[in-house]
Amino acid sequence: MDYQALLERIHGELASRLGEGQVASYIPELARVAPDRFGIALRTPDGGLYTVGDAEEKFSVQSISKLFTLTLAMRLVGDELWARCGREPSGTSFNSLVQLESEGGIPRNPFINAGALVVSDLILSRLDDAKASVLEFVRELAGSDDIHFDEAVAASEAAHGHRNAAMAHFMKSFGNLENPADRVLDAYFHHCSLSMSCVQVANAGLFLANGGLHPTTGEAVVSVNQKKYLNSMMVTCGTYDAVGEFAYRVGLPAKSGVGGGIVATMPRTFSVCVWSPGLDKQGNSVLGALALERLTTYSAQSIF
Amino acid sequence: MDYQALLERIHGELASRLGEGQVASYIPELARVAPDRFGIALRTPDGGLYTVGDAEEKFSVQSISKLFTLTLAMRLVGDELWARCGREPSGTSFNSLVQLESEGGIPRNPFINAGALVVSDLILSRLDDAKASVLEFVRELAGSDDIHFDEAVAASEAAHGHRNAAMAHFMKSFGNLENPADRVLDAYFHHCSLSMSCVQVANAGLFLANGGLHPTTGEAVVSVNQKKYLNSMMVTCGTYDAVGEFAYRVGLPAKSGVGGGIVATMPRTFSVCVWSPGLDKQGNSVLGALALERLTTYSAQSIF
Amino acid sequence: MDYQALLERIHGELASRLGEGQVASYIPELARVAPDRFGIALRTPDGGLYTVGDAEEKFSVQSISKLFTLTLAMRLVGDELWARCGREPSGTSFNSLVQLESEGGIPRNPFINAGALVVSDLILSRLDDAKASVLEFVRELAGSDDIHFDEAVAASEAAHGHRNAAMAHFMKSFGNLENPADRVLDAYFHHCSLSMSCVQVANAGLFLANGGLHPTTGEAVVSVNQKKYLNSMMVTCGTYDAVGEFAYRVGLPAKSGVGGGIVATMPRTFSVCVWSPGLDKQGNSVLGALALERLTTYSAQSIF
Amino acid sequence: MDYQALLERIHGELASRLGEGQVASYIPELARVAPDRFGIALRTPDGGLYTVGDAEEKFSVQSISKLFTLTLAMRLVGDELWARCGREPSGTSFNSLVQLESEGGIPRNPFINAGALVVSDLILSRLDDAKASVLEFVRELAGSDDIHFDEAVAASEAAHGHRNAAMAHFMKSFGNLENPADRVLDAYFHHCSLSMSCVQVANAGLFLANGGLHPTTGEAVVSVNQKKYLNSMMVTCGTYDAVGEFAYRVGLPAKSGVGGGIVATMPRTFSVCVWSPGLDKQGNSVLGALALERLTTYSAQSIF
Repeated sequence: MDYQALLERIHGELASRLGEGQVASYIPELARVAPDRFGIALRTPDGGLYTVGDAEEKFSVQSISKLFTLTLAMRLVGDELWARCGREPSGTSFNSLVQLESEGGIPRNPFINAGALVVSDLILSRLDDAKASVLEFVRELAGSDDIHFDEAVAASEAAHGHRNAAMAHFMKSFGNLENPADRVLDAYFHHCSLSMSCVQVANAGLFLANGGLHPTTGEAVVSVNQKKYLNSMMVTCGTYDAVGEFAYRVGLPAKSGVGGGIVATMPRTFSVCVWSPGLDKQGNSVLGALALERLTTYSAQSIF
Repeated sequence: MDYQALLERIHGELASRLGEGQVASYIPELARVAPDRFGIALRTPDGGLYTVGDAEEKFSVQSISKLFTLTLAMRLVGDELWARCGREPSGTSFNSLVQLESEGGIPRNPFINAGALVVSDLILSRLDDAKASVLEFVRELAGSDDIHFDEAVAASEAAHGHRNAAMAHFMKSFGNLENPADRVLDAYFHHCSLSMSCVQVANAGLFLANGGLHPTTGEAVVSVNQKKYLNSMMVTCGTYDAVGEFAYRVGLPAKSGVGGGIVATMPRTFSVCVWSPGLDKQGNSVLGALALERLTTYSAQSIF
Repeated sequence: MDYQALLERIHGELASRLGEGQVASYIPELARVAPDRFGIALRTPDGGLYTVGDAEEKFSVQSISKLFTLTLAMRLVGDELWARCGREPSGTSFNSLVQLESEGGIPRNPFINAGALVVSDLILSRLDDAKASVLEFVRELAGSDDIHFDEAVAASEAAHGHRNAAMAHFMKSFGNLENPADRVLDAYFHHCSLSMSCVQVANAGLFLANGGLHPTTGEAVVSVNQKKYLNSMMVTCGTYDAVGEFAYRVGLPAKSGVGGGIVATMPRTFSVCVWSPGLDKQGNSVLGALALERLTTYSAQSIF
Repeated sequence: MDYQALLERIHGELASRLGEGQVASYIPELARVAPDRFGIALRTPDGGLYTVGDAEEKFSVQSISKLFTLTLAMRLVGDELWARCGREPSGTSFNSLVQLESEGGIPRNPFINAGALVVSDLILSRLDDAKASVLEFVRELAGSDDIHFDEAVAASEAAHGHRNAAMAHFMKSFGNLENPADRVLDAYFHHCSLSMSCVQVANAGLFLANGGLHPTTGEAVVSVNQKKYLNSMMVTCGTYDAVGEFAYRVGLPAKSGVGGGIVATMPRTFSVCVWSPGLDKQGNSVLGALALERLTTYSAQSIF
């Protein structure tokens, strides 16, 4: 399939819609991103790389980081994770505390904020220099050392992150955090602050389209079953309150972030990252979702 | 792939576990089903049929009927359905009334009971003899006239269906049923009472693995997008409160019923129906889930 | 205290506000009540009767009937009632189903609709001709045979009572109704349809200001403890979602109905009924609440 | 009435039940209190003081402090308080976060923890040395300078107070705290740590039985309406999830604390404080509730 032509067609078709949606504004660092940015990068397991638009520009990955930290946690603790975090869709907002109260402080899944805090806590408990290790892991997945935490973003998240703080203290009250709430929050905010380009994110997600194997080293990033789970989690929990609509329109496992990025995988075929900062009311990139919808429609490639 | 050998291997391996789980007992008609029944039927779009065990024995399809009535409703009203029913996972029990209250009587999706009642209501409003039409539609999908409502089951469901009655009256109070609650309930209980064999159910689900086309007539049962949605709905909502675990273990779109049946599809590849009446605590067939898990593991075929 | 002068002062002061609030409109029989009606009747245990305005005109007592049926049920079954109904404030709307789901079909208290349905069910199970017995009991409390069910109101409630039907079937599904849901609903809708005047309602509530004793016969309607409970229930649960505000402004045990009536008691001192059909957004009579507020302020009589 | 004889009778009758219930154990400072402590102090507006048992021994007032801080906040800001805190029963546990989420961070009332945190925040914003001012205010109410914060208790509450921390951060995320969460929590934990005797608490509550006037100075502590509200709040929200049962059994406005103290008032008649550290499962003192129940039964004095 001529992915390059496909990406260019999509990019051209959507050019008139640049700027749609609302750029996230809860912290100034995100609010000031130019709303007309739009990039796509698609990787295939055989080494193919196809890009269009602002595919090399760095953006704040935000919740896409949950995919990377979950992957790392699965490597570190395996099924132990499921004693402290569920794996079912929540049916509620990504930052809701209601289910935590009725379910004893156990988050529904690792892609809502509470679940990602538990994942961050697990990593903190297992690794000496957890933040550095997460960074190193993402760099290895992406095959690039030019990936960094954005300390200004992390600091701003911390200053405005009262709701995440509430969640962390709430889970602490149920005994579902091992480390002090402040330390877990600091780690979590740093993970969200990762600054990456579409190419880097598409690289980092490629193992999910490659049987769980690192595309260049050939080593298993996760087991086949874990890969299956990560892809299925992206379908059932990856795009906030719009997973049903997303599956309908796009039909790929995907994880989105409020920075405007979305990573998606077509198992055995490709990984793709789109970025455009304008969000719909569920928090997913407007142009990103449109681009993925056209990609699966034009290529007739979808898991469904 | 030698599906026949695969099914026989799985059937043999699980023989020692016949009778595991609890047969549904909320109505006597289900309670008296022999717990050691176990059958599998797999169909491929090219006409292949592979069976093992009690694949020709009729069982009560129960919630599997939700897949058929949803398909019919999508044909009848298209996207109008989504004005009266959501398409997101609920995160709550299949028979919960809580979300209905906070969400104005709009069910989260068509695979929970409330959603299937709305679907039944829509069909009632559009078709003169709705029950006969549903039956006719399922017969056409399955390519068999030997499919009937089990009137004893339908009557028993009605006599014990207080919770479904509560749901119907509740949605009526929000204006989300057009027909009288009793008529909608009667239709719904009849749909659940459909008695079919694994072969018939596998036939009826084959269009989902065949691009939405009827496997023998070649006509479109639903559009490609609708087919995509039906398969994705099965992943996000098809197996009660265990969709995450089911995706992890099995990795196929699937719809289960408390009669012990599960229909699953591997898009572009096969549809399969397993039946064994012993249920796990989420209401899914114990042996059915095990059989599907081994099928996808041994064949390395999964959408993820 | 010169109650007559007090009532006339209040009636005069509020004359300019006649017609404030919204008359209940969910059934046509209530919607057509003249909005400018306003009456007050106050009774003292020593036989005093003080009236002003439309105190002799009949109105639909609606939820005020919950006070009478609860009193009857306490006489019939005593503390057995508390096995099937709580006695705590609900914190939710009077017609919510959410708590029923999480609390196993046990209503929080007898003054929300679900609780009153349980009370109606208990009465149905204990008395041969339950509707006639309820009517007889209210007549005895009020000392008047000129009290009747309004069959047109009862029929209209039934035709529009989908939400109450949902509640009844829901509790039936939990095993907390002994009689068929339809029979319980019929009884409940009849209780709500009772048509009484302010004088009759003030009479019927006087035992609560008289140590639990019937004011003319001197017989115990309920025990001293039960009287204490009925008064406390009116404080904690008697005025829909406004009990806190009502206690603040009025400071008397009270039970309101959407027909615009409110009965209140000052233990050991008086019972009073006000009626004016315009309701505030919580469903309490606007002028009724204002009149009671001035009554307790001007007389410096309040339980607090 | 011979209150002294009454208290002695009650104390004697309950002697055999000393030690019933569970002493609060969530912090070590409370867990080590001797379970057989039992004291009562009753004050009348005319200066009468009646005591029995350990009425002079200090205990941790815990949530009884919510009554004092609410009183102070009403003096400081009047009705402004109700813009940031409701005045209705919650129907949920005193430390629930569920309603906060659905109600935009506005606590239902000032006697649940979230409401008391808002009250503490208000006081912090209005007074220069808020902790000292609260202490001074309680000393003035009680007519005693021998009242102190227990710093060990406050520190222990802080170390174990993850759930309160979650609540504070949650309200902060809704903009309903003006001060930093940590400062509000520190103030709140200090208020709870107040150490007082039954005599001191009964003194401090006497204004509620004295028309809102300080019993010795004669000055208005609060307005008549505010006094009415404080007493009604104690009825509807003062004893955790047992307000209905408490009204039934005791029939007095009351505020309890997990230190085992309960303060109650009979308007125009007396204030009383009982203390015994063994708690029932709702968190109210077992012997305290029994003693108050007998007090109102033997004296036939109740607001209902």
